[in-house]
Order: sequence, then C-alpha cells, then structure tokens
Amino acid sequence: MSPWTQTAPARLTPLSAEVDRRLENLSARALNIDMSRGRLSSAQLALSAELLELPGRGCFRSEDGSDCRNYGRLAGLPEARRLMGGVLRVPPAQVLVQDNSSLRLMHDALVFARLGGVPGADEPWTPPLRIICPVPGYDRHFKLSAGLGFELVPVDLGPDGPDMDQVERLVSSHPTIRAMWCMPRYSNPTGTVFSDDIVRRLAAMKAAAPDFRLLWDHAYAIHGHHDDPDTQPEILTACQEAGHPDRALVFGSLSKVTMPGAGIAAVAASPTNVAWMERWLSRQTVCPNKINQLRHVLFLRDAEGVRAHMIRHAELLRPRFAAVDRALEEHLGSTGLAHWSRPRGGYFVSLDTAIDGCARDVVALAGRLGVRLTQAGATFPHGDDPRDRNIRIAPTAPESEDLGTALEVLVTSVQRVSLDRLLARR
Amino acid sequence: MSPWTQTAPARLTPLSAEVDRRLENLSARALNIDMSRGRLSSAQLALSAELLELPGRGCFRSEDGSDCRNYGRLAGLPEARRLMGGVLRVPPAQVLVQDNSSLRLMHDALVFARLGGVPGADEPWTPPLRIICPVPGYDRHFKLSAGLGFELVPVDLGPDGPDMDQVERLVSSHPTIRAMWCMPRYSNPTGTVFSDDIVRRLAAMKAAAPDFRLLWDHAYAIHGHHDDPDTQPEILTACQEAGHPDRALVFGSLSKVTMPGAGIAAVAASPTNVAWMERWLSRQTVCPNKINQLRHVLFLRDAEGVRAHMIRHAELLRPRFAAVDRALEEHLGSTGLAHWSRPRGGYFVSLDTAIDGCARDVVALAGRLGVRLTQAGATFPHGDDPRDRNIRIAPTAPESEDLGTALEVLVTSVQRVSLDRLLARR
Repeated sequence: MSPWTQTAPARLTPLSAEVDRRLENLSARALNIDMSRGRLSSAQLALSAELLELPGRGCFRSEDGSDCRNYGRLAGLPEARRLMGGVLRVPPAQVLVQDNSSLRLMHDALVFARLGGVPGADEPWTPPLRIICPVPGYDRHFKLSAGLGFELVPVDLGPDGPDMDQVERLVSSHPTIRAMWCMPRYSNPTGTVFSDDIVRRLAAMKAAAPDFRLLWDHAYAIHGHHDDPDTQPEILTACQEAGHPDRALVFGSLSKVTMPGAGIAAVAASPTNVAWMERWLSRQTVCPNKINQLRHVLFLRDAEGVRAHMIRHAELLRPRFAAVDRALEEHLGSTGLAHWSRPRGGYFVSLDTAIDGCARDVVALAGRLGVRLTQAGATFPHGDDPRDRNIRIAPTAPESEDLGTALEVLVTSVQRVSLDRLLARR
Repeated sequence: MSPWTQTAPARLTPLSAEVDRRLENLSARALNIDMSRGRLSSAQLALSAELLELPGRGCFRSEDGSDCRNYGRLAGLPEARRLMGGVLRVPPAQVLVQDNSSLRLMHDALVFARLGGVPGADEPWTPPLRIICPVPGYDRHFKLSAGLGFELVPVDLGPDGPDMDQVERLVSSHPTIRAMWCMPRYSNPTGTVFSDDIVRRLAAMKAAAPDFRLLWDHAYAIHGHHDDPDTQPEILTACQEAGHPDRALVFGSLSKVTMPGAGIAAVAASPTNVAWMERWLSRQTVCPNKINQLRHVLFLRDAEGVRAHMIRHAELLRPRFAAVDRALEEHLGSTGLAHWSRPRGGYFVSLDTAIDGCARDVVALAGRLGVRLTQAGATFPHGDDPRDRNIRIAPTAPESEDLGTALEVLVTSVQRVSLDRLLARR
C-alpha cells in the first residue's frame, strides 16, 4: 500500500468505505476502555501484593532502633534514604524521603521559591516568571507551574533531549527564565533518554538568572523495558563539576514501582538545597509516613531489590509496547498517516499524525467509540498543541484483552480523520 | 505550709537547702527523659497494632469497587470521607481526606491564599499580613504562619477561649488581619474548650478583611479523657448561620488516634472552600495514599469505631494527667509558686510560674537534670513569652515509670528557680 497522503483522491474512496465499515463494527461493540493515563495494570499491581500486609504486626523499628509509629525523622528513615539514593544514584545524605507524591515535592519546591526564594538569591520568585517546558511533555508539569504563576516557554524535544540551542539561547539571555522541566529518562510521552552531551550542556550552560533551577523529574529513572544500563551522567554531579552545584533538584518516586499513590517519593539535591528544602518542610509537617517507608524497605530491601522488581514490570510492559508498535506499523506505517516513538522504557508512546490538525478529532472519535485517550493537546502548555497532531498512547493501563481493541480504535480513528482531511482537499 | 512568696526570707533558707538536697539526688540519677512533645506512649501505640498488617493481601477495593492501589480519587475514599466527616461532624461531601499531616493541609491552605487568594476575594494574600494567635498556643502554628510571612498577633486565651473583646476589636478594625488560629477543643497547651458563646462570636464577628479565615485546628476534637459529650456548636454550621459560610477551614487528623505520622488527615469546609482546595490540590498531587485510608477504615470502621478506640486512649491518659495534677498540687500547690491547667482532654498541661521570669531557667535546670521539657517560650509567637512564665507539660510521652521522676524534676526545678528569685529580693 502506498502512502495515503500521496494517493489520488479517487482511490481513497474505497479505502474510506472500508474504514467506515470497521468503525461501524467497533461502534457496535459498545466499548468502554480507558487508555488515557499511565496507570498500572492489575498484573503489575499484583507484583506488590505482599506490600498490603507489611510491615506486619510487631514490626515498627527502623534499623537505627527508632519507633516508626511515632513522630520524628523529617528527612525520612535512613534505610529509605539509602534505597531512594540508590535508585537516584545520589548519596543518602542528599536525599529527603517523603510521602507518596513526587509531584507534591516539585510543587513544594516551586512554592518555597515563590514565597522565599532559593539558595543563591534569597529574594522570593515574583512574576514575571518563566519556565522552560520541553514539548511534547507532561501535562501535570505544565498545570503545576502555570498554577503557580509561571509563563510556560515551550522548546522542542528531539530524539536525544531538548533542543539545546533553543534552551541555551533562552536561558542565557532571559533572567525571567528561572527553571526548566526535564524528564531525563524515558520522558513522558516520547520515551526520550537525554544524551550524555545534553545532560552536560544543561549542567554547564550559562544562565541569566543566578538562581536558575533544573527540575529533574526522574519519574522513570529505572523504568526501562530492556534492561539497558543507565550510563547517563548523574545530574547533581554534572552540575557540581560544571560549577553550578545548586542548579538541579532531582525528584523520584516508587509510584510506578509498587502502587501509584501509595508509594514513597524523594527529592535529591545539593547539601545546600537539601537544607533549604528541609527548613521549609519542617514548618509544614512533623514527619513523613515512616511506616510506609519501612513497608517499602521491607518489601524491596535496597536499590538492587528495586531493580530486580523492575525487571518483572519490564516483562509485563514489553509485550504491550510491542503490540502498540505492531498495530501502528501495520495500520499506519504504510499509509504514512503518522509517526510515533519507539521508547525503550517509560509508560507512553507519542504519536504525531502526519497531517496537522487531526489530533483533537482523532481523540474525540475514539472517545465516541468508547476508548478514552489522553486529551489532545495535553502534552503541550495550556493544552494547546499548535499543530494539533500529538496523541499520547498509554498502553499500560487497559486490561490485556482490551489493549488490542483500543489500538484498533486508535488506528481506525487516525485513518478516518486523516481521510476526511485528504478527501476535503479535492 | 504557707505560700513561699509570702514567707520571710530567713525562713526560706532551710527550704532552699532541702531543695538543693533533692536536686543533688536527682542529678546523681543521670536521667534521660523526654517530656518535650505530645508523643504517644508505647501503650497507646500498641492499641493500633493491627494497623501494621492491614489492609492485608488481596484487600484493595474501596466500597465503591475502585482499586485503591492505582491513581485516582483526589478527595479521598468515600468511606474515609465519611469516617473523618463523622469525627469532625461535617457532611462527607465537605471533607477532603489526604495524607498523614493536617499541619501540611494548614500550610497548603495558607500557601494557596498567599499565591492565589481565597474565595470571596481572589487577590493573592500579600504582605502586610497578620494572623491572630491565641496564647499560650501551638508552636508549629506560629512557625508555619511566620514562615509564610504573617505577622503574629497574640491575644490572650482565657478559660473559655480567646479573649473575644480583643479579637473582635482587632478583626473588625484591621483589614491586614486575614486569619486566626483556633484549637477549639482541648487546646494545646492549656486544654481549653471554647465555650458555645465564643464559637458563635467567632462565627458572627465583623471582619474588616472580607476574606478573613478561621483556621480551626480540631487536632483534639475527640481526645477527651472523661467521655464528656461534645456539645460545642459545629463551626461550619455556625459560620453559615451567621452569614459567613466560607469563614472557617476545619482540620483534623488521626495522628493521635492511630500512629503519629502514619495516620490520615482531613480538611472540612464549605462547598466553595472545598472546591477551592481541590482545585489547588489537583495541581500538586494525583491522589492521596488511599491504601492508608482503606487501612484506617478497616481498622476503625467509622466515627463510632473511632470513639470506642478513643476511650481506650483515655483510659491510658487519665492516670497520667491525674499524676501531673497530684505532683503539682503536692509540691507547688501550697507553695503558691505556680498555677496550671486541669484539662479534661488533649495532650498537655500548661503551667505558669507565679513569679515572672522563671520559665527559661526552670526548663534549663530540668534539662541539666536530664529531663527535656518543651523549650520555654515555645507557646508564644517567635518563642517569646513576654512574662517568661509559661511551661508546657507533655505527660503522654515518657514511659510510665519515668513520668513520676520527670514531674519530680519539674517541680523541684520550679522550686529552685523561684527560691532564687525570692532570696534575691532580700
């Protein structure tokens, strides 16, 4: 089959009729499948079944002998700091382990900056404030920072990371640019792994704002599907070596290791930044939930235990991502109607329709057929994809038997909407 | 024995020698007892032993059938909202159940106000900002609000609640006064229960700031020692009836019901305020730890179950508070060197030395004898007790066998420091 985009309109008509037949069949099935978010499948959740009965009656001591049932230890349990330090490749003393949500820690960091400034410039961050957002990216990052008064500045995310020429030009010349979102491994939604060179350039680049911060969201630090070794330069070290020791704040969580919302989260940073975070945290809470930290340490033991556990997740995820690629290749590859990412980790596939202005209609059509996709535009600031072509595919969530059906709906919807555009050109 | 404050100096000398002998004996014991904070005793923690093995393998469904192991339900589980609603006497729809820390929810509320304003006046709260702090009060309230840029305005806390003449005068005439801390039941540290009249005056008073807020910290809502019925007017209803439906934000937690730091916390408010909190929370987190909510509901069942559980706490707390009162009465009562609160609930006894300027020295002396008391001044804004006389006693924390010894150290320290002052008057 030759690319539909280069097919004579007359020859598209029978294809269109065939697509309609398939849509009718799908419609008759009254589907109800949610593929909108990076949820864990039942099989993945079952990997952590033991967690639900831990720590167990009578088990409440930290390795230092302290009673985890009582107040104290704002920075987290020593063994939990070691575990999260191992995951993030940062010394435990530079890790604060808190409750379930790393997003909340990112929000905290920006709130603390807004209200009191950050080390290096103790003036509160007051508007005008701008933050760099590689696109496509994570909708919750965008909403979080927009909600705190930041203007969102999109830059392109390429196959090896953000377009560093854009980034360096912006960051070096605009003191109102105070921060940048980064998902350095298996980025949401593209699965991009930042190259070593890009990590080093981010650490070293000149910033017009003396207190510029990289918000290094390591949400998928250990979420590879193929056991690829992690040789990426560790960002805190890279920043230190480049003479910007306080530039990066690193965030991670076990939400996609054990149970979303019931895991533990951490922030890792320079000693100066850690002291700053701890001072603010000490005013807003007495301590994190240390029983949940203990529970996780008992279940996962250490960073090695986490990696072993992640291999079991990978075994469940690999076939799903292979299924996505197969379905897209089979139904969209030869038609030339889309290109998509082939991530080696993470939770998403990012698809761009070949024809601009299709994404919203595709998502809407899939929705009418009973398959809920991530809202079109969500991967761009303010939900506004300027070319209206990006669709985030979240293949981890549906039950296995539903994934194929959901993909069928997706590709057929892409075909239908694309054909509409092509036929309208006549 | 007649009051030492009215005893001729010559007759104080032998008393002083006797006090010194007792101090020497205590010093020789090389004590190490922490009576500084409202921690739970081992016996209290043991009441919730079962919690450590809940929800149990295979148990992860909410009553609505949803999987608590996955993302979702930002407002908390329906059954947890009902439970906390029962505790706070508020309809579940007006309750958001979050993670372990109610302090964090208070911090959140003030942060949201600082950065975006509150319903009724959508301008961000920017300095000058003032907040009313009944004194003596809770040090973490003071640090939290000072850290967010509020000037702390102390008002006297009387036996029935804050001095309402002061409060009404301040709140009605100063638009910079935007909020007020309240601990309406068994206040920290005095154990004060606000009278019905005071609750109603707080709800009804005229405020110069149209967006004035009562921060109603119900930390000890159900923490009575004597099963006294709670007939206090519910503040959200009282505010509604008084024509200020959005005035109060109510906070509560199960930290002192199950395990400090490992419980669940809630905020209750008017529908308008709940929508406002939820909008901000939705940007900072995906959802709370619902497994921990499920765990608590399985353990406590409902508000009735919580009350039954609190009776067991009360049985453990009553003798401790009786021991405090007995020791103070025996060693300080007849000497006239102090007066103190006789709380019917909560976690603290508040003691004032009869002679001003003694508290710091008493706490320091007890510390040298190996008994750690709450830092003197902590119960006042910025740690500054203008009369330097208030000492917070936290009798719940020490192991039972240590409590008597700690009290002996306390009363002997009060005697020693007071005698120093009296003898210096010669």
